[in-house]
Amino acid sequence: MKVQVAGLSVCAVPSYSTAIVEDKTYLLPKSGAEEMTRGFLQELFNILLSYICKSSQRSSKVLDFHHPHQLKEGLEGFNLDVPDQPETLEQLLVDCRDTLKYGVNTGHPRFFNQLSSGLDVIGLAGEWLTSTANTNMFTYEVSPVFILMEEALLKKMQQIVGWSGDEGDGLFCPGGTISNLYSILVARYYFYPEVKTRGMGALPQLALFTSEHSHYSLKKSAAVLGMGSENVVLVKCDERGKMIPIELEAAIIAAEKKGLVPFYVNATAGTTVYGAFDPINAIADICQRRTLWMHVDAAWGGSLLMSDRHKMKLQGIGRAWSVTWNPHKMMGVPLQCSVILVKKRGLLHDCNELGATYLFQMDKPYDVSYDTGDKSIQCGRHVDVFKLWLMWKAKGAQGFGTQVNKCLENAEYLYDQLQKRGDFELPEHSNVCFWYIPPSLRGLTPGPDRDTRLHQVAPKIKGRMLEKGSVMIGYQPLGPKVNFFRCVFSNPATQQEDIDFLLEEIARLGRDL
Amino acid sequence: MKVQVAGLSVCAVPSYSTAIVEDKTYLLPKSGAEEMTRGFLQELFNILLSYICKSSQRSSKVLDFHHPHQLKEGLEGFNLDVPDQPETLEQLLVDCRDTLKYGVNTGHPRFFNQLSSGLDVIGLAGEWLTSTANTNMFTYEVSPVFILMEEALLKKMQQIVGWSGDEGDGLFCPGGTISNLYSILVARYYFYPEVKTRGMGALPQLALFTSEHSHYSLKKSAAVLGMGSENVVLVKCDERGKMIPIELEAAIIAAEKKGLVPFYVNATAGTTVYGAFDPINAIADICQRRTLWMHVDAAWGGSLLMSDRHKMKLQGIGRAWSVTWNPHKMMGVPLQCSVILVKKRGLLHDCNELGATYLFQMDKPYDVSYDTGDKSIQCGRHVDVFKLWLMWKAKGAQGFGTQVNKCLENAEYLYDQLQKRGDFELPEHSNVCFWYIPPSLRGLTPGPDRDTRLHQVAPKIKGRMLEKGSVMIGYQPLGPKVNFFRCVFSNPATQQEDIDFLLEEIARLGRDL
Repeated sequence: MKVQVAGLSVCAVPSYSTAIVEDKTYLLPKSGAEEMTRGFLQELFNILLSYICKSSQRSSKVLDFHHPHQLKEGLEGFNLDVPDQPETLEQLLVDCRDTLKYGVNTGHPRFFNQLSSGLDVIGLAGEWLTSTANTNMFTYEVSPVFILMEEALLKKMQQIVGWSGDEGDGLFCPGGTISNLYSILVARYYFYPEVKTRGMGALPQLALFTSEHSHYSLKKSAAVLGMGSENVVLVKCDERGKMIPIELEAAIIAAEKKGLVPFYVNATAGTTVYGAFDPINAIADICQRRTLWMHVDAAWGGSLLMSDRHKMKLQGIGRAWSVTWNPHKMMGVPLQCSVILVKKRGLLHDCNELGATYLFQMDKPYDVSYDTGDKSIQCGRHVDVFKLWLMWKAKGAQGFGTQVNKCLENAEYLYDQLQKRGDFELPEHSNVCFWYIPPSLRGLTPGPDRDTRLHQVAPKIKGRMLEKGSVMIGYQPLGPKVNFFRCVFSNPATQQEDIDFLLEEIARLGRDL
Repeated sequence: MKVQVAGLSVCAVPSYSTAIVEDKTYLLPKSGAEEMTRGFLQELFNILLSYICKSSQRSSKVLDFHHPHQLKEGLEGFNLDVPDQPETLEQLLVDCRDTLKYGVNTGHPRFFNQLSSGLDVIGLAGEWLTSTANTNMFTYEVSPVFILMEEALLKKMQQIVGWSGDEGDGLFCPGGTISNLYSILVARYYFYPEVKTRGMGALPQLALFTSEHSHYSLKKSAAVLGMGSENVVLVKCDERGKMIPIELEAAIIAAEKKGLVPFYVNATAGTTVYGAFDPINAIADICQRRTLWMHVDAAWGGSLLMSDRHKMKLQGIGRAWSVTWNPHKMMGVPLQCSVILVKKRGLLHDCNELGATYLFQMDKPYDVSYDTGDKSIQCGRHVDVFKLWLMWKAKGAQGFGTQVNKCLENAEYLYDQLQKRGDFELPEHSNVCFWYIPPSLRGLTPGPDRDTRLHQVAPKIKGRMLEKGSVMIGYQPLGPKVNFFRCVFSNPATQQEDIDFLLEEIARLGRDL
């Protein structure tokens, strides 16, 4: 029997016509199902491989956009509803192909839309193995190898941050927001351990400080943790998006005057929109003098620590008490891979442990300090470490450095190109943020009228971009600045020709606006 | 060139001797690297397939146990440390093989250690595709298909719970603990929306109620959310582990007398240790009368809703205001796949939204109500829906029902076998929990001395089990009950012969204790 998967190399799937009729899958663990299983997975593998190869082809589209109602109507028979009765293996393979077809190719060299992009083959291999191992990070007994890999990588990352050998702890978390949430959680527990049992009612009204350009996860976490988003004080930034240290000092004093108790400061290493680096050392000085918890959100910028050329942008990070670092961003690790590092060993455990006797028995026949699950706010925790471990083996620390350098060279190249052209305007460096100025707006004097019209340019171009599927880039307003494009580089597949294409395509799509 | 991977079918990986020396991987997205990529991934695929086939073979070990220090010493050259310089593709494949070799085979028919087990081939295919698509659940523009699949599955699960078409909301979450955390978070926001901006300081001292047998995630979440673990009142259970409704009523009154404000009750559908189902309707009556948020933690028991034979155990679940349900448990979906359902539409969004302008622009060219990321406490969110979607297509709702029935038949079989034997004692039903009584203890009268000795039996047998690698099962004490084994069934690979083997193996390993 042949499986019909249009446009793909088709290989034989063993016949299952003799299988019990009502069971249309007939795969392992059923006995005698090895050949069928092999055939099905090989066919799926071919579909995935074909997608992977297409991923880096510039001739392919970044996406084949459809509106929600179009996809829900069932394009070419692609039915999103789930059935009561089983479907055939052939239909499942068609569904897999369609799922990829109507999705977004985040590995495409012209996908600039998110801080996470690219498709690293080794990282992908790591994820395939992880899902095949299908286990859980809570105890050593079910994850001996992954628990030790986590220990090894956390230690390595702590060294890179600049902590000495006898300090440092951490966890792999489901995303940078959760990592930032951990930083506030352990900071609160460090100063007020009674919060764990008694709650915020037993504490004074606490205040947190972070820059106005920092990620929204600080506010979100404060809301979740019962501290209130309005107690997150947003400190003013300079025109490049960096926190102004004297403004921090002033904000702390103002909060104290209002009766709040400052306890936590976040410095951002690589803001989401501008890619700005807060002055870590100056902020650390203030935190040290006032005994405040010092966190560095290096979710985006942490990868620069892998580059000898760029790591000085995070100078002083070793003074932080906790650090968020997302290898799934510029290091190109598949989603998700985020790390929270905490300098004081044992704090994560003390803050979160509840000692459930069905998981964390103390009379187990091995060293139970390796049952790290009680450090976590999760119970079951996905294995996010292996893909990073395997990529690190493949590239070495050096290879990550080269990859990061390449991303920053791309940003410099785009910046240079923008400066050479007359139809773009630059508000900021690093992440490269810019406006496209269509011919109709070029003569206008800056002011509210021009701003109103310019504000509509980026969304319109983005809409045309999605329809055409040729390239993807994000946009947003910020403070008084109307909608601008933000170009971020984290995809090793991106070359200078893709950057040229991006600018030309924006100009092509926006010329008549 | 041949890749040496001992004990596996070896296929040719294209030579890369002509590649640039310092880049030892030479894979896509490098141009011309298609063949190398194909060869490497095909080789990895063979390793994974060999593991998958071995997974269900009873002749293979469940695990090849080593202590942490042994693995860290580098068994047979398996080095867990990450290097500065890249390693070869051949070495990576050897590392992949070793990672699986020293891990735990959670798909083995004799792995009874966790509530999640088994290795579903379709679910695995879903995970492989998910990691190949490598995208993020925050916006429709980067996840059009997965966002719509999430909507379709949430709607289906809401229907199954018994909610009408115009109510119901939800999210896929990184594990059941986070799902339970969401239930408390939205409950708090529902009664006290000011908590989001002002924090717990603006609220009275709240109290939560859950049974003494419920999962520790309720206490952990209360600690994280700043509500204090001691404000989680543990309500007494009957001897089967079910919450006693009049005890709940009494606990609520007692809390009020202490000045606390009751607002939230959790009923557990399938407790972690005994597998007990709280009387949902009786608890719902109390919640309704007193206008308390009613959550059902059906992380473990929710799958029984798929079975016509067993769904009556969750009678009344439609009256819940929120439900946790983990398809990664008895439905056999690969880790992680957990769902929080919330009856009141819009509440998740209002509770968590912050409207970050770089992600959730309102001037996008499509219906932005599909940008569901602001409902989440995460920013980036892993795609956990596709594997469930694909399995649902493969099995249909019916197939899941059959699978659940099989797990419960296995439990009944074990129960029957235990009753027939003289060397085991049964404290409880459902999840099957039992003691093994070695010959040396059989004459002793029940009492403290016998208990002290019996307490050591399960850990000793577990230790021998790990060393031998023949089977895996968990144990724990509970209240006054000394260490007992807990057998849980969620693995479709498990047959009656495996249950017979388990009992015989325990008797073999414990005979001389």
